[in-house]
Amino acid sequence: MANAVRTENAPVVIIGAGFAGLAAARALGAAGISTVVIDRQNHHLFQPLLYQVATAGLSAADIAAPIRTILRDLPDVGVLMDEVVGIDRVARSVQLASGGHITFAQLVVASGARHAYFRNPEWAAHAPGIKTIDDAIRVRRDLLLALERAETMRAEQRETRADHLTFVVVGGGPTGVELAGAIAELTRHAAERDFPHITRNCVRVILVDSGDRLLKALPEALSAAASRALMGLGVEIRLNARVTALAAGQIMIGDARLPAAVTIWAAGVAASPAARWLGAAADGSGRVLVGPDLALPDDAEIFVVGDTAAACNADGAAVPGVATAAKQMGEHAARAIIARRQQQPAPRFRYRHQGSMATIGRSHAVADLGWLQLSGLPGWLLWCTVHLWFLAGFRNRLVVGANWLWRYLTFESSARLITQQGNDMS
Amino acid sequence: MANAVRTENAPVVIIGAGFAGLAAARALGAAGISTVVIDRQNHHLFQPLLYQVATAGLSAADIAAPIRTILRDLPDVGVLMDEVVGIDRVARSVQLASGGHITFAQLVVASGARHAYFRNPEWAAHAPGIKTIDDAIRVRRDLLLALERAETMRAEQRETRADHLTFVVVGGGPTGVELAGAIAELTRHAAERDFPHITRNCVRVILVDSGDRLLKALPEALSAAASRALMGLGVEIRLNARVTALAAGQIMIGDARLPAAVTIWAAGVAASPAARWLGAAADGSGRVLVGPDLALPDDAEIFVVGDTAAACNADGAAVPGVATAAKQMGEHAARAIIARRQQQPAPRFRYRHQGSMATIGRSHAVADLGWLQLSGLPGWLLWCTVHLWFLAGFRNRLVVGANWLWRYLTFESSARLITQQGNDMS
Repeated sequence: MANAVRTENAPVVIIGAGFAGLAAARALGAAGISTVVIDRQNHHLFQPLLYQVATAGLSAADIAAPIRTILRDLPDVGVLMDEVVGIDRVARSVQLASGGHITFAQLVVASGARHAYFRNPEWAAHAPGIKTIDDAIRVRRDLLLALERAETMRAEQRETRADHLTFVVVGGGPTGVELAGAIAELTRHAAERDFPHITRNCVRVILVDSGDRLLKALPEALSAAASRALMGLGVEIRLNARVTALAAGQIMIGDARLPAAVTIWAAGVAASPAARWLGAAADGSGRVLVGPDLALPDDAEIFVVGDTAAACNADGAAVPGVATAAKQMGEHAARAIIARRQQQPAPRFRYRHQGSMATIGRSHAVADLGWLQLSGLPGWLLWCTVHLWFLAGFRNRLVVGANWLWRYLTFESSARLITQQGNDMS
Repeated sequence: MANAVRTENAPVVIIGAGFAGLAAARALGAAGISTVVIDRQNHHLFQPLLYQVATAGLSAADIAAPIRTILRDLPDVGVLMDEVVGIDRVARSVQLASGGHITFAQLVVASGARHAYFRNPEWAAHAPGIKTIDDAIRVRRDLLLALERAETMRAEQRETRADHLTFVVVGGGPTGVELAGAIAELTRHAAERDFPHITRNCVRVILVDSGDRLLKALPEALSAAASRALMGLGVEIRLNARVTALAAGQIMIGDARLPAAVTIWAAGVAASPAARWLGAAADGSGRVLVGPDLALPDDAEIFVVGDTAAACNADGAAVPGVATAAKQMGEHAARAIIARRQQQPAPRFRYRHQGSMATIGRSHAVADLGWLQLSGLPGWLLWCTVHLWFLAGFRNRLVVGANWLWRYLTFESSARLITQQGNDMS
C-alpha cells in the first residue's frame, strides 16, 4: 500500500470516517469502486449524541462503532487507522504519521473540525470542547469529580463549595444548549438523589452566548421555547456576553469574574488543517473554499466535504455544519467521482435542508422541519425518533433505546463513572 | 467529618466498595447503623465480568455503577470518594489522601487486592493485570491496536506481522481462562470478519500456567473440559511453564523466547497495603491474618474481609478469594458489629461454598456446584444466568443482557473502541 502506484489504478482515498466520509465510502463501495478510508480513530462517532456521554447519560460504546464493522460488507472499501500529516498534490499521495504514504486517483477530504478558541489557544486547557470520546470522558470525569469534592466539603467551606458547583457552558448553539440542559439535569436533579449535601439550589449552570438569542439557526419562537425550558431546569442564560478571560477554576464574562468548577467550550469550531495540507484557499474558520461540485476550483479530482468545506448552495447560501449536510456532501462527492469515471460531467451540489433540532433535558426539545415546528414533549419525542433512526447502521440502537427509556422512566444516569484518572493509568 | 469525635459516637468505617465492602454497608445500613464507605473510585465494579470489557464484549458502564447510587436508599450510609493512606489504631482514625482523617467506632477493611508480580515489579509495565476499568480499557486498546498494526503490514513484513498477532495470558485460573477464551474469540474469530488481511491461522493466543492443569480449584474433569474448549477456540496451552523474563513485545517462558504483542497478567494477586496500615500479621500474599470472627486477633473492633483477609473456615480450610466469599465475609463483619453493639458475642464466620465456574468463549463454560457439575453449553447458560442474577442491584442487567444476547446471535463485539490514546487526551 505504501509503495507508489500509477494513479489510474489508484483507489479513491477518503480522509475521515465521520458522517461525510462514511457516506462517501458507502456510495463508492456500493458502486464497486476501490476505496480506502483513513481515520486516526478506529471508530465512527455519532457526534450528535456525544454530549450525552459527557453528561453520563450514555456510554461511549452506545454511540460509536468500529469503522471496519460499519464498512465490513463493502469488499472494495479498505480501512486504514492512521493519522494524515500531509497531502502531496503533485505526487497525488497522502502522507501518513506512520511514515507511509498512499496514492490516490481521487481524494475526498472529510477530516472534520476541532473546537476553535479564536485568538486564545491557551483557553483549551481550561475549557475543553467535546469532539472525541476522550474529550467527552474527560468532561464527564471533571463534572463528577466536582460533585464529589463539593459533597465532602464542610459547612465552614460553603464559600468555596459554591465554586465547586458552578458549571459554565460557552456557546448557545445546539451543542451548548444540549450540554447546558444535560449538565443541569445531572448536577441539579440527578445528583440531588446521590449527594446528601448537594441541593439543586447550591448548583449553578451558566450558559453564555455572545449573540442576542440562543439557537440562531432556528426561528425566534423556538429560541424562546428553548430558553424557557433551560430556565425551567435552572440554567442561567447570559446573552450578549463575551468570554474575556479563562483560567483554572475561573472565567471572566465581560468584566465580571466568575468561579467555574468546569467550563465547557461549545462556541466555535475550526476546520482540520486540510486547507494547509492542500495549499487551498480557506474561509475564516479554516474551511476549504470549494466549487459547486465540492471539488477544489483548480483540481477536479480533489473533493472537500463536511465540516472541512465552505460550500455554497445553488442559491448562494452557505451549507450549514450539521450531520445531515455532511452526509449529503459525502454522497455527492461519491456521485461526482462515479460520474467522472464514466466521462460524465460532475453534477452540482444541492443541499436539501432536513431541519434542525436541539434537545433540552430529558423531556423537551425544539425542532424546526420548515413545514413543522415543535417544542416541548412532542419535540422531544420527534428528536428521539430521528436520532434513534439515524443510529441505523450501528448495532447500538437497541442499547441506546434501552438506556434512554430507562433514564426517562427512572431519571437514572447509566454511565456515571469516573475513569481515566492519572493514578489508574499506570 | 475531618475533626476528631469521641469514638462512641463515631460511625462504622468501611474501606473499599467491592463485593465485601458493599455487603457490609448494606447490612449495617439496613440495621440503621451510621456507616461511612470510603473508596478511591466513585463506582463499584462487577469484577467477574471485567475481562469482557478488556476484550471489547461489554463497555464499562455495563458492569459498573456509582457507589452512591447503589447505597442511595440507606440514609445511614455515607459515601466518601477518597484514597486511604493509613490507619491510626490508637486514634481510631483512617488517614485520607485528601489530608483529612475520619474516626471510626468499628472498622471494616475491604480494600481488595492488586495483581502481584512476585519478585519482578518491573514486569507490570509489560504485562498489565486487570483489576480496574482503566486496566481493562488499556488492555482493550492494546489488543485492538495490535490488530490494526498487523492489518496494515505488507507481505514482506510477514515475520514481524506474526509477532503483532501473538497474545499471551499468564495464569490458568478462572480469570486467565476466561481472558484467553475471549481474546481468541476477538482476535481469531471476530477479527477475521473486520480485518481482510488477518486470518485466524496467523493469530496465536497462548495461555501459560506453572501448574499441571488449568482451574486448579475445579475437579480434574472440568479442567480437562476447559482445556478442550480453549483448544477448540485455537488457544495454545502451556502447562508446567514459568515466565522467566518479560520485556516490551517479548516474553520468556522457561528458556524459550516468544514475541508477544500483548501480554496480560492473571497469575497472582497481592492484598492491598492493609497489613502495613494496621501493623498486622499477614500471609505470603499480604493478606491479613484474621480470627474466626474475621476481626484482628488483638483488636475486636477492626475487621478485615474479602481478598484483603486470610481467613480460615471452621474446618481450617482457607476461604477462597472469590466474589461469593467476599460477600459472605462482608455480611458476617456487619453481623458481628451489630452483635457487639448489642453486647452479644461475635459469631464465628462459616464460609458456604456456592461453587466455582469459568466461561470459555461465547457458548461454553465449566461449573462446579458441588452437587452438580456442568460443562459446554449447559454450563454457559448456567454461567449467564448466575452472572445476570448477581448483577442485581445494578441498573445494567437489562443492557448487559441485551449485549450478551446480541453478541450470541451475531458474534458482534459491541465495544470495540480504541480510546485513551495520548494524542486524544489533550
